[in-house]
Amino acid sequence: MTNIKSTEKPKLKNPILIEGLPGVGNIGRVAVGYMVGEMKTKMFAQLYSRHFFPFVMLQNDYEIRLLKNEFYYWKSAKSGQRDIVFLTGDCQSLSPHGHYEVTEKILDFVEQLGVKEIITIGGLATGELEEEPKVLGSATDKETMEKYKKFGIDFKAAERVGYIVGAAGLLLGLGKERGMKGICLLGETSGFPIVTDPKSAEGILKILTKLLGIKLDMSKLDKRVKEMEGFIKKVEDLQKKALMQIAKEEKAPVQGKEQLRYIG
Amino acid sequence: MTNIKSTEKPKLKNPILIEGLPGVGNIGRVAVGYMVGEMKTKMFAQLYSRHFFPFVMLQNDYEIRLLKNEFYYWKSAKSGQRDIVFLTGDCQSLSPHGHYEVTEKILDFVEQLGVKEIITIGGLATGELEEEPKVLGSATDKETMEKYKKFGIDFKAAERVGYIVGAAGLLLGLGKERGMKGICLLGETSGFPIVTDPKSAEGILKILTKLLGIKLDMSKLDKRVKEMEGFIKKVEDLQKKALMQIAKEEKAPVQGKEQLRYIG
Amino acid sequence: MTNIKSTEKPKLKNPILIEGLPGVGNIGRVAVGYMVGEMKTKMFAQLYSRHFFPFVMLQNDYEIRLLKNEFYYWKSAKSGQRDIVFLTGDCQSLSPHGHYEVTEKILDFVEQLGVKEIITIGGLATGELEEEPKVLGSATDKETMEKYKKFGIDFKAAERVGYIVGAAGLLLGLGKERGMKGICLLGETSGFPIVTDPKSAEGILKILTKLLGIKLDMSKLDKRVKEMEGFIKKVEDLQKKALMQIAKEEKAPVQGKEQLRYIG
Amino acid sequence: MTNIKSTEKPKLKNPILIEGLPGVGNIGRVAVGYMVGEMKTKMFAQLYSRHFFPFVMLQNDYEIRLLKNEFYYWKSAKSGQRDIVFLTGDCQSLSPHGHYEVTEKILDFVEQLGVKEIITIGGLATGELEEEPKVLGSATDKETMEKYKKFGIDFKAAERVGYIVGAAGLLLGLGKERGMKGICLLGETSGFPIVTDPKSAEGILKILTKLLGIKLDMSKLDKRVKEMEGFIKKVEDLQKKALMQIAKEEKAPVQGKEQLRYIG
Repeated sequence: MTNIKSTEKPKLKNPILIEGLPGVGNIGRVAVGYMVGEMKTKMFAQLYSRHFFPFVMLQNDYEIRLLKNEFYYWKSAKSGQRDIVFLTGDCQSLSPHGHYEVTEKILDFVEQLGVKEIITIGGLATGELEEEPKVLGSATDKETMEKYKKFGIDFKAAERVGYIVGAAGLLLGLGKERGMKGICLLGETSGFPIVTDPKSAEGILKILTKLLGIKLDMSKLDKRVKEMEGFIKKVEDLQKKALMQIAKEEKAPVQGKEQLRYIG
Repeated sequence: MTNIKSTEKPKLKNPILIEGLPGVGNIGRVAVGYMVGEMKTKMFAQLYSRHFFPFVMLQNDYEIRLLKNEFYYWKSAKSGQRDIVFLTGDCQSLSPHGHYEVTEKILDFVEQLGVKEIITIGGLATGELEEEPKVLGSATDKETMEKYKKFGIDFKAAERVGYIVGAAGLLLGLGKERGMKGICLLGETSGFPIVTDPKSAEGILKILTKLLGIKLDMSKLDKRVKEMEGFIKKVEDLQKKALMQIAKEEKAPVQGKEQLRYIG
Repeated sequence: MTNIKSTEKPKLKNPILIEGLPGVGNIGRVAVGYMVGEMKTKMFAQLYSRHFFPFVMLQNDYEIRLLKNEFYYWKSAKSGQRDIVFLTGDCQSLSPHGHYEVTEKILDFVEQLGVKEIITIGGLATGELEEEPKVLGSATDKETMEKYKKFGIDFKAAERVGYIVGAAGLLLGLGKERGMKGICLLGETSGFPIVTDPKSAEGILKILTKLLGIKLDMSKLDKRVKEMEGFIKKVEDLQKKALMQIAKEEKAPVQGKEQLRYIG
Repeated sequence: MTNIKSTEKPKLKNPILIEGLPGVGNIGRVAVGYMVGEMKTKMFAQLYSRHFFPFVMLQNDYEIRLLKNEFYYWKSAKSGQRDIVFLTGDCQSLSPHGHYEVTEKILDFVEQLGVKEIITIGGLATGELEEEPKVLGSATDKETMEKYKKFGIDFKAAERVGYIVGAAGLLLGLGKERGMKGICLLGETSGFPIVTDPKSAEGILKILTKLLGIKLDMSKLDKRVKEMEGFIKKVEDLQKKALMQIAKEEKAPVQGKEQLRYIG
């Protein structure tokens, strides 16, 4: 079961969903995290799922916190400009089929808010340090691709990569089945074990601001990424430790030498 | 989902369920298989489950056959003697939680037939070749244990073994929650990689016939076990091959050297 | 959850289902792919499932595409000749119990279309390069086997192989429970890591055309198989990479040396 | 499916839930087990789940016993003092998503009893033998933390540990979503492969008795822990053996050398 609890049902003007959950280089997580922090956004819904890791996190010395994804909205002051729903959070599904379930729930939820278009953000691991990471793109359909081509997105992602795993891919794939449209922005990143790639996230943000017609002060990006990094690294480490623990528990008995007397 | 399809709803006199599904030494499978073949039984229901292996078997040159468990009934001609429901089949659940689901379905089904008592059969791996394999027993409750003690069952199974895995255990554990009673008979067996242990099955059959007040010609046991063995071995081998194939598919890519470019 | 979305509910004349999903040598995938391309077929339904890999594919430079199975129909112009429903697609279920669920959904769907007979196609890995690959067969029942024996199928598959994994097997096994009939055609193939085995697929196609009383121009087979191969290989590679990635994520922490402080 | 069967619906005065299920050093299991045994408590409900290991245990020579969690209540004789619901048992969920399901069921159940506050107990593995194990704490919220700070709990758990796995964490994380409040008490323990850590449990009990305003004779702690240890060790061993058996079954075929002929 996956639950979305909202504290408010905002009336939004032609809203677009922008997703940035953890992934390679945490580019989407960082880009959306920065926008949520710098723009006048409001958190209005939280998602938790039994497909997440079965643990709670500790923060601020003592505080217990369920693993979650969060929805924020941003209302434009300009007439004619569309509103935005942001989706970010701690983690994605632990199990393969959980990815489908969580994505379906997200689509059910944003559909009710009037979302008909989606932008997802991911990283494309190149295996090399990129001096000037490019932004590649893919789209649900030709019309949408052509609408956004002018913003400097290289819509030839399929030449470089064959698939998009998890929410960044399934939101668009399953959304398309419901008549939604959208694009996935992939920032080039080394793929080396780094926590965040702010340079690649910056490339994404530059395109996004143009595309959305918004202004965003980029001067605090490095500072804010440093702040976020601590938290993102913590969740990553915890998931690794949890996997380690699970692996240890599952491996341990196999190495034991106890005589096995079993019964069927 | 687990389905039980019955072709008949027999009226049974104080029926007792006797379960013998595949397990260590296939003792229950062989004992129940022999009773079903030698007594005047009738197959009246079949169970299949998505918790079984996802393959069909081939038999008689060309014939396709779903993996199944089967229910048979035996009606006593003597007044005062109880009727019997037999449960046997190809396999048990592939997944841990599937064991609970399949067992619940079996209990739902036999409860409707009026079953209030259950005998399950398993093997106890001793790690040694047993000249004269003993039959150990455990029970849902003291009264039931005492009722059956006189038939030569050593009701100290807990001293030798701590748990009973799968249907043989859960039918009694979950049945007890519904007010059902019963015993589990465990035949000592080496646990060495043998397909069937007819000697241990014979010990079980001797006790069962006394306990049920039935006569059973044991002279064909060796012959029938040989016949059954071919089929049981085939299912075992197929499950091993299927696991091998799954393992191969899952292992193979890990050993590849292809460069990994992934996307999140 | 597994969904089938149809754009049309065709009226079909005594339709037969022909399944060819990915598998050993991709023989079914290639044979059905060729028929769908060469005959006047129409795609009318798509199936997607949370039991498939949790990723979307990229094609035609930029286009996002959910993993899917597809249904096509072919209407015969001749009176007295039966119509055909074809099933092919990108992949099968990732999890064992998913195979059962997806197959049940397919059967629910084709049952509504009036399908009472099914032909599935698979490969039989022989471990050797086959100069003249034979076609082996198995059937749900004797009558069906005898009906099709004359078309050159060796209905002794059970001598060579014990089981049929996945859709090719379960469609017939679970279909049989619903009163459906059918056969599985198995083309001999090396089983070596090749993407497609057009020679074995050709053997299947020769039998199928005779059996269905249709004409099929075989001259484009090699060309079309080459075209298909690129796509099939891509999906195979992606699944391998996805498994690699999953394995890497699950393995990585175990090899770490970080001190483990855990909590229960 | 997870079931809770209650024999009674007690009327409780402002009840608090205290959870102590198996975990690191079995500190919660031992502490709650001791309170349940020494105080005038009554068992009134049992929980079993298909997310537990699929086996039954044997105890008292012959007796079959499903794996369970148990609920006890304690009614205060003093006016103004709150009543207590205790939760303890044999095991936790085997699968990650099962943890969420079982915890939700527990919360549904205790919510109906009027529980609005929860104390969970766990162990914090330090990797060292602790002469004087401390008790660390975390809380759902600041108010609750401050209410209990005076009882000698070091509410800086987040500095030492990042997450709490299983029921001890999820009861508070998911409970918080329902408006429940509470704390988790973590006793320092070596984390070495010991069955129980009575010293650490004693530290927890000292704080709990003060916090709850109850008296508890500690003189029998060592004796009772020894008694409990046998049973706890047995369940732990059985789970290890069951895992070993599962691992063996899954590993065995991979090492086989049989030629693999498979079919797709």
